[in-house]
Amino acid sequence: MPGSRRIPPATGRDVARLAEVHPSTVSRALNPKSRKGLRPDVVARVLAAAEELSYRPNRIARALRVERSQSIGIIIPDISNPVYAPIVRGVEDTVRAHRLSVLIASSDNDQTREEELLGSMADQRIDGLLLATASRTYPMLHEVNALGIPVVFVNRCPDNPTVPFVTGDDERGIALAVDHLRSLGHTKLAHLAGTETVSTGYHRRLAFMRRVQESGLAGDPNAIVSADMFPDPVGIELGVTLCKELLGRGVAFTGIVAANDLMAVGCYDVFKQVGLSIPADVSIIGYNDVPLVDRLEPPLTTIRSPHYEIGQRAASALLDLIAGGESRPETIALAPELIARGSTAPPKE
Amino acid sequence: MPGSRRIPPATGRDVARLAEVHPSTVSRALNPKSRKGLRPDVVARVLAAAEELSYRPNRIARALRVERSQSIGIIIPDISNPVYAPIVRGVEDTVRAHRLSVLIASSDNDQTREEELLGSMADQRIDGLLLATASRTYPMLHEVNALGIPVVFVNRCPDNPTVPFVTGDDERGIALAVDHLRSLGHTKLAHLAGTETVSTGYHRRLAFMRRVQESGLAGDPNAIVSADMFPDPVGIELGVTLCKELLGRGVAFTGIVAANDLMAVGCYDVFKQVGLSIPADVSIIGYNDVPLVDRLEPPLTTIRSPHYEIGQRAASALLDLIAGGESRPETIALAPELIARGSTAPPKE
Repeated sequence: MPGSRRIPPATGRDVARLAEVHPSTVSRALNPKSRKGLRPDVVARVLAAAEELSYRPNRIARALRVERSQSIGIIIPDISNPVYAPIVRGVEDTVRAHRLSVLIASSDNDQTREEELLGSMADQRIDGLLLATASRTYPMLHEVNALGIPVVFVNRCPDNPTVPFVTGDDERGIALAVDHLRSLGHTKLAHLAGTETVSTGYHRRLAFMRRVQESGLAGDPNAIVSADMFPDPVGIELGVTLCKELLGRGVAFTGIVAANDLMAVGCYDVFKQVGLSIPADVSIIGYNDVPLVDRLEPPLTTIRSPHYEIGQRAASALLDLIAGGESRPETIALAPELIARGSTAPPKE
Repeated sequence: MPGSRRIPPATGRDVARLAEVHPSTVSRALNPKSRKGLRPDVVARVLAAAEELSYRPNRIARALRVERSQSIGIIIPDISNPVYAPIVRGVEDTVRAHRLSVLIASSDNDQTREEELLGSMADQRIDGLLLATASRTYPMLHEVNALGIPVVFVNRCPDNPTVPFVTGDDERGIALAVDHLRSLGHTKLAHLAGTETVSTGYHRRLAFMRRVQESGLAGDPNAIVSADMFPDPVGIELGVTLCKELLGRGVAFTGIVAANDLMAVGCYDVFKQVGLSIPADVSIIGYNDVPLVDRLEPPLTTIRSPHYEIGQRAASALLDLIAGGESRPETIALAPELIARGSTAPPKE
């Protein structure tokens, strides 16, 4: 996107001369906020002259096409999923220093809706796009590429990303969870897996299987139940369904690694119903450390992914691309940490 | 905004004739998503012809100026406040049927940032704006009016709004809370108030004072502690601070009405520290029913405000204005409900 005909660099005075306006008018016309006081034909003349001369007023703006909106977009799956709030905050805080604004939209995990949003974002003339909605086989990759603007995947990505991807290190997070349970003495572990259609669910399940095997623990395939078996939406209800499925299989386990916190909360409900106590009868670990899980009874042990930093790093990567950096399919995976609370303890004899 | 020179209504064929294009090209050029395949000069010709003839392809679009973006904006204070997720979902689900997209931005309760966002939203050429950020003395009212687009306030509003306002009925919600405690036998109530600078905090405090007085309960002014006394951000920490302040005053109370759920959670922390039991020693009611407060120990009694419906109604009001309806300063206050859980019980003898 950044122009290749930018030598020698033009100055504001060059633009003023070509547009036949006073130099002070150039910056007013180029700033969308001060532009309103000027006559539209004057603004059009300045923009045309600036474009003609490839004039860009500052570092980030230098790389922005003048007709762009000085904003970036982020598409998230669902605004009510508490995972995304800190990611978005990290993005906002990072781009703010560059006087860009952030437009947020949620796709509701609906492909038609996401197509509409991509079209709409393109119409807004955003300068770059953060996508937190990608499935592993991301059918809209073509549309995304056709936008002709920098794109960075965040939190989820397609199987073969062609652009940067910033996420939490799920491999490491799941290893922390398995190691924690093993260090407490658990040898028979179960996993409530998220959907395989998105990278987080898929990679967390693979990581669970790998770490269990590496650790020499019992690796009963029946001890893994997956969201893909059920139509329930992600959340507590899904956790209830999966936990019941797990109990129905009659497989032995003393510890559960859930792919997210809300699934773990669903397990709380089921164990209460069947009269099993956490952690006396079964230990449970969640994932994400969303608000208030430290207040459950017992407080939930979980893996805290650095969502705010993920948002920051994704925004930085996007700003680099907007400023003319080369887009590489690199993955930046930030380290999570174990937050040990009351839902995990040594197993019974 | 809606044109007044729209008689007789033009057809797509009229536009095609004037623009000298094939009729099928008209709809392609007017649809931002299919537009990309066309030459820019063709698109420009069709847009000019459509504008000239005041041609509008459908009901909502009829009222949209062609140069608008087919999107609305919503500015919220803080995306990590769980109150806003269902409001935004209600907005999204409502405008989606009209093929408008929603741009969300969060102001972080920062006026400079909000000014930037208003400028940016205006640059996006949004068709209408929902504002959930207004303080009671809203210094940006002038800028908002200057945008020249329909505006609806949601959840919070200035003291003298000049446009529609959709919110929960705080008066009724607080009355439900006070009546619930009174019906359990409580006669000495305390209130943790939100900031007076926004309408929710202010009106909930007034409603508390009024209902306590109407009910003939003890109305000790020292039993009200307000967020304005402390610099803490809204949330659990603020609840801790206010609850300690309340205890420090030595005023007698057996029940607390908190202005929001997170403040109530802060009370849980303080009472645990000082060895008081909920609800045996003190009953607590929150406000909003945010996710997971039903899982606290004990589960939190709270007032559930219909946030999703608030979002729906606000979006409908905005769509009406976009379609040419007259903007009136009416308030639509939706009824909340009491969700009685384990944090409230009759007081000790």
